[in-house]
Amino acid sequence: MSDPAALKQLLELVAQGRVSPEVALGELKDLAFESVDDFAKIDHHRQLRTGFPEVIWGPGKTPAQIAKIMQVMGDRHPVVMATRIDVDTYHQLQPKVHNLTYYPEARICALIQESPQVHHPGTISILTAGTADLPVAEEAAITAELSGFAVNRLWDVGVAGIHRLLSHRHVIAEADVLIIVAGMEGALPSVVAGLADCPVIAVPTSVGYGVSFGGVAPLLTMLNSCAAGIGVMNIDNGFGAAILAGQILRTAAKLR
Amino acid sequence: MSDPAALKQLLELVAQGRVSPEVALGELKDLAFESVDDFAKIDHHRQLRTGFPEVIWGPGKTPAQIAKIMQVMGDRHPVVMATRIDVDTYHQLQPKVHNLTYYPEARICALIQESPQVHHPGTISILTAGTADLPVAEEAAITAELSGFAVNRLWDVGVAGIHRLLSHRHVIAEADVLIIVAGMEGALPSVVAGLADCPVIAVPTSVGYGVSFGGVAPLLTMLNSCAAGIGVMNIDNGFGAAILAGQILRTAAKLR
Amino acid sequence: MSDPAALKQLLELVAQGRVSPEVALGELKDLAFESVDDFAKIDHHRQLRTGFPEVIWGPGKTPAQIAKIMQVMGDRHPVVMATRIDVDTYHQLQPKVHNLTYYPEARICALIQESPQVHHPGTISILTAGTADLPVAEEAAITAELSGFAVNRLWDVGVAGIHRLLSHRHVIAEADVLIIVAGMEGALPSVVAGLADCPVIAVPTSVGYGVSFGGVAPLLTMLNSCAAGIGVMNIDNGFGAAILAGQILRTAAKLR
Amino acid sequence: MSDPAALKQLLELVAQGRVSPEVALGELKDLAFESVDDFAKIDHHRQLRTGFPEVIWGPGKTPAQIAKIMQVMGDRHPVVMATRIDVDTYHQLQPKVHNLTYYPEARICALIQESPQVHHPGTISILTAGTADLPVAEEAAITAELSGFAVNRLWDVGVAGIHRLLSHRHVIAEADVLIIVAGMEGALPSVVAGLADCPVIAVPTSVGYGVSFGGVAPLLTMLNSCAAGIGVMNIDNGFGAAILAGQILRTAAKLR
Amino acid sequence: MSDPAALKQLLELVAQGRVSPEVALGELKDLAFESVDDFAKIDHHRQLRTGFPEVIWGPGKTPAQIAKIMQVMGDRHPVVMATRIDVDTYHQLQPKVHNLTYYPEARICALIQESPQVHHPGTISILTAGTADLPVAEEAAITAELSGFAVNRLWDVGVAGIHRLLSHRHVIAEADVLIIVAGMEGALPSVVAGLADCPVIAVPTSVGYGVSFGGVAPLLTMLNSCAAGIGVMNIDNGFGAAILAGQILRTAAKLR
Amino acid sequence: MSDPAALKQLLELVAQGRVSPEVALGELKDLAFESVDDFAKIDHHRQLRTGFPEVIWGPGKTPAQIAKIMQVMGDRHPVVMATRIDVDTYHQLQPKVHNLTYYPEARICALIQESPQVHHPGTISILTAGTADLPVAEEAAITAELSGFAVNRLWDVGVAGIHRLLSHRHVIAEADVLIIVAGMEGALPSVVAGLADCPVIAVPTSVGYGVSFGGVAPLLTMLNSCAAGIGVMNIDNGFGAAILAGQILRTAAKLR
Amino acid sequence: MSDPAALKQLLELVAQGRVSPEVALGELKDLAFESVDDFAKIDHHRQLRTGFPEVIWGPGKTPAQIAKIMQVMGDRHPVVMATRIDVDTYHQLQPKVHNLTYYPEARICALIQESPQVHHPGTISILTAGTADLPVAEEAAITAELSGFAVNRLWDVGVAGIHRLLSHRHVIAEADVLIIVAGMEGALPSVVAGLADCPVIAVPTSVGYGVSFGGVAPLLTMLNSCAAGIGVMNIDNGFGAAILAGQILRTAAKLR
Amino acid sequence: MSDPAALKQLLELVAQGRVSPEVALGELKDLAFESVDDFAKIDHHRQLRTGFPEVIWGPGKTPAQIAKIMQVMGDRHPVVMATRIDVDTYHQLQPKVHNLTYYPEARICALIQESPQVHHPGTISILTAGTADLPVAEEAAITAELSGFAVNRLWDVGVAGIHRLLSHRHVIAEADVLIIVAGMEGALPSVVAGLADCPVIAVPTSVGYGVSFGGVAPLLTMLNSCAAGIGVMNIDNGFGAAILAGQILRTAAKLR
Repeated sequence: MSDPAALKQLLELVAQGRVSPEVALGELKDLAFESVDDFAKIDHHRQLRTGFPEVIWGPGKTPAQIAKIMQVMGDRHPVVMATRIDVDTYHQLQPKVHNLTYYPEARICALIQESPQVHHPGTISILTAGTADLPVAEEAAITAELSGFAVNRLWDVGVAGIHRLLSHRHVIAEADVLIIVAGMEGALPSVVAGLADCPVIAVPTSVGYGVSFGGVAPLLTMLNSCAAGIGVMNIDNGFGAAILAGQILRTAAKLR
Repeated sequence: MSDPAALKQLLELVAQGRVSPEVALGELKDLAFESVDDFAKIDHHRQLRTGFPEVIWGPGKTPAQIAKIMQVMGDRHPVVMATRIDVDTYHQLQPKVHNLTYYPEARICALIQESPQVHHPGTISILTAGTADLPVAEEAAITAELSGFAVNRLWDVGVAGIHRLLSHRHVIAEADVLIIVAGMEGALPSVVAGLADCPVIAVPTSVGYGVSFGGVAPLLTMLNSCAAGIGVMNIDNGFGAAILAGQILRTAAKLR
Repeated sequence: MSDPAALKQLLELVAQGRVSPEVALGELKDLAFESVDDFAKIDHHRQLRTGFPEVIWGPGKTPAQIAKIMQVMGDRHPVVMATRIDVDTYHQLQPKVHNLTYYPEARICALIQESPQVHHPGTISILTAGTADLPVAEEAAITAELSGFAVNRLWDVGVAGIHRLLSHRHVIAEADVLIIVAGMEGALPSVVAGLADCPVIAVPTSVGYGVSFGGVAPLLTMLNSCAAGIGVMNIDNGFGAAILAGQILRTAAKLR
Repeated sequence: MSDPAALKQLLELVAQGRVSPEVALGELKDLAFESVDDFAKIDHHRQLRTGFPEVIWGPGKTPAQIAKIMQVMGDRHPVVMATRIDVDTYHQLQPKVHNLTYYPEARICALIQESPQVHHPGTISILTAGTADLPVAEEAAITAELSGFAVNRLWDVGVAGIHRLLSHRHVIAEADVLIIVAGMEGALPSVVAGLADCPVIAVPTSVGYGVSFGGVAPLLTMLNSCAAGIGVMNIDNGFGAAILAGQILRTAAKLR
Repeated sequence: MSDPAALKQLLELVAQGRVSPEVALGELKDLAFESVDDFAKIDHHRQLRTGFPEVIWGPGKTPAQIAKIMQVMGDRHPVVMATRIDVDTYHQLQPKVHNLTYYPEARICALIQESPQVHHPGTISILTAGTADLPVAEEAAITAELSGFAVNRLWDVGVAGIHRLLSHRHVIAEADVLIIVAGMEGALPSVVAGLADCPVIAVPTSVGYGVSFGGVAPLLTMLNSCAAGIGVMNIDNGFGAAILAGQILRTAAKLR
Repeated sequence: MSDPAALKQLLELVAQGRVSPEVALGELKDLAFESVDDFAKIDHHRQLRTGFPEVIWGPGKTPAQIAKIMQVMGDRHPVVMATRIDVDTYHQLQPKVHNLTYYPEARICALIQESPQVHHPGTISILTAGTADLPVAEEAAITAELSGFAVNRLWDVGVAGIHRLLSHRHVIAEADVLIIVAGMEGALPSVVAGLADCPVIAVPTSVGYGVSFGGVAPLLTMLNSCAAGIGVMNIDNGFGAAILAGQILRTAAKLR
Repeated sequence: MSDPAALKQLLELVAQGRVSPEVALGELKDLAFESVDDFAKIDHHRQLRTGFPEVIWGPGKTPAQIAKIMQVMGDRHPVVMATRIDVDTYHQLQPKVHNLTYYPEARICALIQESPQVHHPGTISILTAGTADLPVAEEAAITAELSGFAVNRLWDVGVAGIHRLLSHRHVIAEADVLIIVAGMEGALPSVVAGLADCPVIAVPTSVGYGVSFGGVAPLLTMLNSCAAGIGVMNIDNGFGAAILAGQILRTAAKLR
Repeated sequence: MSDPAALKQLLELVAQGRVSPEVALGELKDLAFESVDDFAKIDHHRQLRTGFPEVIWGPGKTPAQIAKIMQVMGDRHPVVMATRIDVDTYHQLQPKVHNLTYYPEARICALIQESPQVHHPGTISILTAGTADLPVAEEAAITAELSGFAVNRLWDVGVAGIHRLLSHRHVIAEADVLIIVAGMEGALPSVVAGLADCPVIAVPTSVGYGVSFGGVAPLLTMLNSCAAGIGVMNIDNGFGAAILAGQILRTAAKLR
């Protein structure tokens, strides 16, 4: 129903009074999208529906494809972002897309036409177990900030030095949502979730060696946590953690 | 610092005016717990801190241990629950603990001294892909209801019959948090998360055979979902999903 | 029996009237092949038997070996193709084999002496979940087209935006065989198989990260699908999917 | 749209001439289903759409649930079947459902109101590597026969005695679709596919020990087959193989 | 060389003055053992050499075999123990071996002819994360006590309630060796090792469900710990942990 | 060609002088077998060809099927054996098959019409690491003895007591083939192969717990052995080891 | 409590006589650390507490980060070391940090202000199975030597040539702690632990190919060892082995 | 006992008549080896004992180490070989070691002082499934030839074209030992073992993609083979297969 003919038909029905505008809006919310040169289908109404921009996942796409999708999306959205963009890809995108901003630690490229403001209530606190977990944590932080959320960063508070964590207990106490990023054995979320009274999202990272199996070990730790109620993400998926954290704070706003 | 001596010392400091009541409350919130016959340590203040009762995970504990812990906890909490309790264990607990309620599908045993009321805003909608996923979904539903949340159930709407799901789109639209329970290939959360604009929690189940590997296959599906921001639980962990969903709604209430 | 001596003996038996030509044809259909410099044995009659050319799988063979096999096969077959040929290998093959065609997205190299026409009934529709799945889908598409089948392409209709798929339901309805190509969580075949009433072939791709385990996650999804009757291929095996789709349409033609 | 209200509305639109009967039929084909006591949703039109009955997968459902679903489905369909039904479950179903037929080797229970006739063209040949693979092969055979297809059985022709297989080459030659069932190392489909010129479907079984890993070893063998174009099923999934084989023969009928 | 002939020869050499008693003792320390009915070979000098009795690992041995080995060993050693002995096996052993002591939680059976005294310096402290880890911890504790070491037990101090652990910090501070027993995610050793300044031995347990994979998850956690220097045991191997702890304290005694 | 018609045709060709007896024997050696009630195909000439009887692998076959196959085979062979037969199955077979011998440790059932004599040169020495590995070792020993080979048994000489092994070095030195059976970590074959100068066959067993993963750990140990040239069997496959050992001694005999 | 404010407060309490110096020392022992530019938190008192310097794990940190942390730590500690430093990283560190020492085989970089002396009793003997295990063994050896322990090295004594090991039995006999480093099948620790009467630490290495799975095979061997009481490390973790060995000798010294 | 002192003592004992020359020879056969610069220990008598030279496994050793070991060994042995030597390493070895021969397909480097002659009875036939398996097969072939065995090569006879294999049945019939090398699904050994009446050794290769998992799939196939008695090697271990094949033929010679 979402092809032009279907849309035309829907609008004619509205014009004829057979479909009310409210109903038509509901229909449109679900259906509209746009094709980009056949290789991609952009869902413009998704932001309306889910509150976040269509984000481009970089791997497996050519720089030319990424640039094209960014431009088409940029015509309609104030902020467009692409994740997992390494420096080389960024250098290939720069001449093709105007006004690109690059966040090297987060490996995020963004086309920002209006500077994002904090326009949602609450704070997302992001903790890492080690210094090497920083890129994943920054992916989460930049995603959240570009989506209009306030972020609080706390790095290198892993459980082997429990007092480093306990001395920052106020960061945990003041958070409305927590994102915990950890590689190696990934034990930090268990300890934090025992101290927190807000939702905890855990992101395992591929930091480690040997039987860390590229992040499988901390993933298992987080899924098996004896601290109940931790929502777990795929390995290195800082982006997804930020989206879930954002959805939690938006839900709060809706319930008001 | 949390042993009796430490607590006494803290209270003396308050009495002497050297520690303010506010500070002391903060300290107490973290520290107090109680030993049960040496084999378990109950954390009475945890409910204060995280908003949920200390729940007893049944497996690996003898009925006598479970009964003892329930009684000690029951002295201080209006609702005490034990999960993963099969019918046989329930029958062994019944003579030992008064007023036990058993939910056979959810495999939950509860000691309820005040009937739980919905005392938090918002609705948790729980969906299953198939009929066989029901026990895990009920574990989530009963946990949420005993914790004071409103629950909406929708069973058997797996993706192989997509219209069964689409015809219940209003359940998705009206939810404040979604818990999606699925075994086999576990694809339901991906489709639902694309339609929803609230947080989505996914629970893989051990329903399936062959290369479902006891629930590993749907777990991987959920962690790899192309729909960003799904919080994933351990296999069959309906309880954990309810806790996270509850924390999300409590956070919303706090932010108001 | 297939060495020269055996063949000579068989023909003599025919000449002597002791073996009928029909029987001899049957024997020949199974047996004849040819050695290429000892390192490869080509099965010229395979096309007679299975309806598809002997295709060269590139990896682990030197460009010199590939070129040699292509030339020997080219003497007898109108179309010879090699798969998994990257650009570098193509450049090494080009001076060695005349009239090579290269399909960069499909990573296929072909020696085409007669342009392939559609000479089988029916249509193979190929769908991808994402843009990054395109190389595998093109491997399937080019293989099918070079084998004489009509192909219909539909890219980027993954389940997280279910309406993109539903709005192209006619592609599913009109297909005689469907090839569904998906990485990440690989949920697309389950949804499509629920909508289709023709055979569905699923190809997992190595697109993804973390616990996609190089395509194992979508493979498991497809094997565990709650939609019954999906035929599953090895990871990234677009070629195999095209062969099975072609065999299905050829069988249909034979049954007429 | 598929709830009673939606259906009523659709029919009113037809009555008013605003929706043509053709369009309405198309809509109905996709949408109609029925709820059974909330725990299951039956898709009555699925047979219309995919040509096969909604089959009940037994595991994880109580006998009472299975019986209830069978009865509701039996009101509308000439043949209803349930798979993975062990003898004990059958004995619990028998008093609850009239006229139940049980196939012990195939572990299938069926409610047959009209004896199924062969009403599709072509033959499905089913081969097993060993005697112990028989239950899975019978699941495929009975499913195919109950769905109206002609079946040819050939048991115990594994590759370690290649001449047992070669002496039955005519079974391979005469098949329109082949289902190859094998446990242990699962090599049979590779050899058969090299001899056949029709579609080959492979089903790994859990027959074996040690590093057969409950059927994972033959599954890997089949997915990695050097014979191109084999469609692979989940471990022990004879049912799925029959559905795919049936869809292939139905496609042939449609193309005529 | 360790058969009777060899031993006789060695002693004759000593008698003849060709081998000094010191040398002979060294030889004997390595070599002597005894056959029990062909199915087992007992190493009597092992206790001399490693300081611990030859312990019988129960699984895979018949009660008759266990009883026979216990008796042969009991003739020479003051304490003989068998591990992984369930209650049924114990009841079969009881009539066959006199004076058997059974420790049901530890699943250890012992033939004790002299009550074991603490005859080594230092204390082994054993901690568990949960109540369900108790059997493994008791296997360690009883093994250590029967071997003559002082043991300190502390149960149910898992990391999700970090203050339960911190309030017992003196147990950690006073230990000479620590054995940490944990299932689920197994994070306790990481936290403890960060607080301790003595050797830490970690034992993963099979307590858990889903992706705990029977104890693999906590095993990986312990091997990947960011707290350096933890010695890890096989899953549920409380016995091995006690042996290593004992060897550490014995080394201390030797260095004096 | 191996069905009755084919055999008749072959013999007629011989009678007519068109096929020489030598050629016919060669053909017969490959082809002849017999069907048992459709569920099994017996290869009578296999013993001629490989020197070992067709052995029945018990699991997955009903006692009735096993008995029937044994009887058909017993008509032509002096010794017929079935492996992996537990005591219960033996008791069901006993009334159905006359003169059955049962080896409980080896779990082998045999129909012996002529007592097997040692009729091949050389000795097969079989070593186990522990007492619990005995059933697998006995499966190898009985198989070898029933096939006419001399066997030498040596149990419980695992590497943790290296002198138990070294004191039996003559067993290693005198062997013509060695079969080493080991569970747990499976290190014994590496040490033995370093001492031996004859072929070494290694059989991992499922003896162990935790990360032995049912025998995968010793299997990996044996495949990775730094002692070159060890031939490895599937887990618990004592039967296969005996067959390979026998083939080695038969080859030796042929080469003389 | 460990931020400046907290420390100031603690010291004021001491000055006012409300906290005794003993108590304050205890507090300080746990709490003090220092932030380095936000990306790392250094725990200066850890050496006091655990007897070893805070060591920098190189991977995932930029050379600039490593250099900065080394300098901050170098202000307070006589020896600072960084592990897993390849030659390229060393060359980038050299101009940034004065007086750097590089151990190429051990891949360790150290800032040594006082030459480390042996200041602990006892000897750590380190054995390798092969020459290729040397880098891991040297990581252990250098770590131990820089921490003030005496080290004894013995390379290339794998079990396939058991006499190479037995002829060095005195190295085993004289050790106070043994570190056994082995790749491939990793059987060396089992044999050594059977000969030794001191604690044995095992380190699997990634030396091997095929099913060594990057060191998983020797890891499993070590965890499953039939020689009780071996403490196992993560793959290639020579550093951790040295820390545990050191803690064992320090404990011995404390117990004197 | 194998250090110079021990050897001297042994010889003195012989000189004094206290040890007979026979006994001394036996002792020497086991014990003698030589250290190379501490990093390697060469076992000169191993060839005496096992009939094969000490072969150098290249990976993880520096070219300087390899060259040094080759030279030391070359002083005593007519043929010294190093495996897994890529072209670059060969070029680094060439100036350091005189008269080096390089076999590029087999990746073997050899120092040959006497041309190896066939000096053992029997023939080793080596078969590959595909062209890409050639390097592993050549490693086996060259190793066998350098060790003095006759080799027969047959490439590219995989099971998907079963007649290519059957037409070379004489190669199978004439072999005294068979080495079967196969990647992808690895089914060739099962078929060959069913046809052969000599020992069969199977070598899985890492040829394949997707779920071949670097050779694990064909390894599992070979271990699970329904053809009994196949001796399996680690992935790509052509060298080991040649050693086992050689030991089998040597055993034949000994039995004469």
